[in-house]
Amino acid sequence: MIIDVHGHYTTAPKSLESWRNRQVAGIRDASVRPKVSELTISDDELRESIEANQLAKMHERGSDLTIFSPRASFMAHHIGDFAVSATWAAICNELCYRVSQLFPDSFVGAAMLPQSPGVDPKTCIPELEKCIKDYGFVGINLNPDPSGGHWTSPPLSHRQWYPIYEKMVEYDIPAMIHVSTSCNECFHTTGAHYLNADTTAFMQCLTSDLFKDFPTLKFLIPHGGGAVPYHWGRFRGLAQEMKKPLLTDLLLNNIYFDTCVYHQPGIDLLTKVIPTKDILFASEMIGAVRGIDPETGFYYDDTKRYIEASTILSAAAKEAVYEGNARRVFARLDAALKAKGR
Amino acid sequence: MIIDVHGHYTTAPKSLESWRNRQVAGIRDASVRPKVSELTISDDELRESIEANQLAKMHERGSDLTIFSPRASFMAHHIGDFAVSATWAAICNELCYRVSQLFPDSFVGAAMLPQSPGVDPKTCIPELEKCIKDYGFVGINLNPDPSGGHWTSPPLSHRQWYPIYEKMVEYDIPAMIHVSTSCNECFHTTGAHYLNADTTAFMQCLTSDLFKDFPTLKFLIPHGGGAVPYHWGRFRGLAQEMKKPLLTDLLLNNIYFDTCVYHQPGIDLLTKVIPTKDILFASEMIGAVRGIDPETGFYYDDTKRYIEASTILSAAAKEAVYEGNARRVFARLDAALKAKGR
Repeated sequence: MIIDVHGHYTTAPKSLESWRNRQVAGIRDASVRPKVSELTISDDELRESIEANQLAKMHERGSDLTIFSPRASFMAHHIGDFAVSATWAAICNELCYRVSQLFPDSFVGAAMLPQSPGVDPKTCIPELEKCIKDYGFVGINLNPDPSGGHWTSPPLSHRQWYPIYEKMVEYDIPAMIHVSTSCNECFHTTGAHYLNADTTAFMQCLTSDLFKDFPTLKFLIPHGGGAVPYHWGRFRGLAQEMKKPLLTDLLLNNIYFDTCVYHQPGIDLLTKVIPTKDILFASEMIGAVRGIDPETGFYYDDTKRYIEASTILSAAAKEAVYEGNARRVFARLDAALKAKGR
Repeated sequence: MIIDVHGHYTTAPKSLESWRNRQVAGIRDASVRPKVSELTISDDELRESIEANQLAKMHERGSDLTIFSPRASFMAHHIGDFAVSATWAAICNELCYRVSQLFPDSFVGAAMLPQSPGVDPKTCIPELEKCIKDYGFVGINLNPDPSGGHWTSPPLSHRQWYPIYEKMVEYDIPAMIHVSTSCNECFHTTGAHYLNADTTAFMQCLTSDLFKDFPTLKFLIPHGGGAVPYHWGRFRGLAQEMKKPLLTDLLLNNIYFDTCVYHQPGIDLLTKVIPTKDILFASEMIGAVRGIDPETGFYYDDTKRYIEASTILSAAAKEAVYEGNARRVFARLDAALKAKGR
């Protein structure tokens, strides 16, 4: 069984975007603010948006199950206040839930949170609990920079985040650390901000005692860990200067990397440098990079091909990357699968 | 001949730091503001600080010449106003000049600029010209984020930077794109901010037409290009989505990467993915990572060992990385060496 731990609902029906545009316009002009009930998306529309896209590609490429969360770049936590984010998160999460109900063998949800810059993260807990308890979601996406590229929140090691972590530990769910759209013109969203956030989050963990306070907390750092595996020697050396334990002991019981790295040499580096137990298969399909690589003739984001072609990973290691590690990190997914005899 | 294109004066006599501390204190309290003349560092002190440190390691490791600029983390352009930065840059550049005069076969200067957040970059031109014309410097360090982690300046493609680029083209000097200390608690300086800035700068170039306006402009992106080579497939795919030419044509006649990547797998990835002509040898010794790697028994930043051990680079390619590429990119260095018969 092949589990893709990083998929977003990037193909939602256009009416979602139209509603969002009206919501955003409504921040300044209450008279145009839409009601939630004005957004109606039928099951058929959902089916169509999935069958022709993610599901078709999953069948083509040979993955079985995707952990599916709202479109990352559309979270846009920097827009409006907590109420705006709360309404928007609820809508987006519900759509992912409905997809998971329509295709229960192929999709399981992960929640976006109604974060808002300067607002206490504990305000996100009701949405988190609903998604886990009522929707059967198996993880959350946590945005370390709800300001969208201005980085005005404290680091992930700050106590403001602890209420979220307490809930994560209570429900045994991991968080994928994933930013959203950059509204800072310095940072291209998918080419700079995403990767920078991955590196930043890793370093925030490295310099802190977060995992002493939460020994069972689990973070998934997407996009192959940003710059981290490529600079693994640098990070090992920096930890050493700080008299920290080896990174394997300090961080790699709590931090995991996905395989959203879109060429063979990158995947080879990742799998050479990072222990297999810390690598989870993912593609972020259909996401930032949708084209076909002229050098290979295959989709850049068809990351399964790179794993298949790996001469570094043994067959057992590939199985761990594809399934075993995901079941270990997403414990509620494992339980749900086992309950279904999978 | 082995040229290290990325060295900073991290070992300057303590009196420099003391003077700087007084300068910083003087921003709020003019009565304690020090005069430039109150800083006196003798040639013997300079010699000592270099001979026991950079020069000793250059001899040990077998590099011949270092392009030497003021300590990157001490540039701290976010502190004070333009006048503060101008005084500080002049002092730091002069010290690098004196080092290059004391050890003319081993060091040549590259200038820090007196950047200041919100101040027109063209104010840096007098210092730039002095360093090139009077000090014989062969390059500059350009900080894309003088705010120190708040990223309040426009991208490198913005016309505010053009006066600097015009001077770079006029003097045929490259800029190393190098940030300084982060004063944003989200970003660890050497573990996150430096690498993020490298990735950010690359993406700013990718999304712009900067090199159409300046076909001969040359940027050196340090620290192995941040996350770029590791995610080369992602960047190729993003450029493709934007209907841009191949990255080799779009960027790699203007952008170069150094080898400050502190483990063998990272260097192997860099040299596999990036054309040899775009890779310049560097170590950033003595810099962020000063320890000995327990996995190898050698210094993390002894990057020459990784190049030596490379099975990817041919002997001719290694020579290009060590010398030929540096002479091509730093044209004034090449001219100065040739004038000395080197």
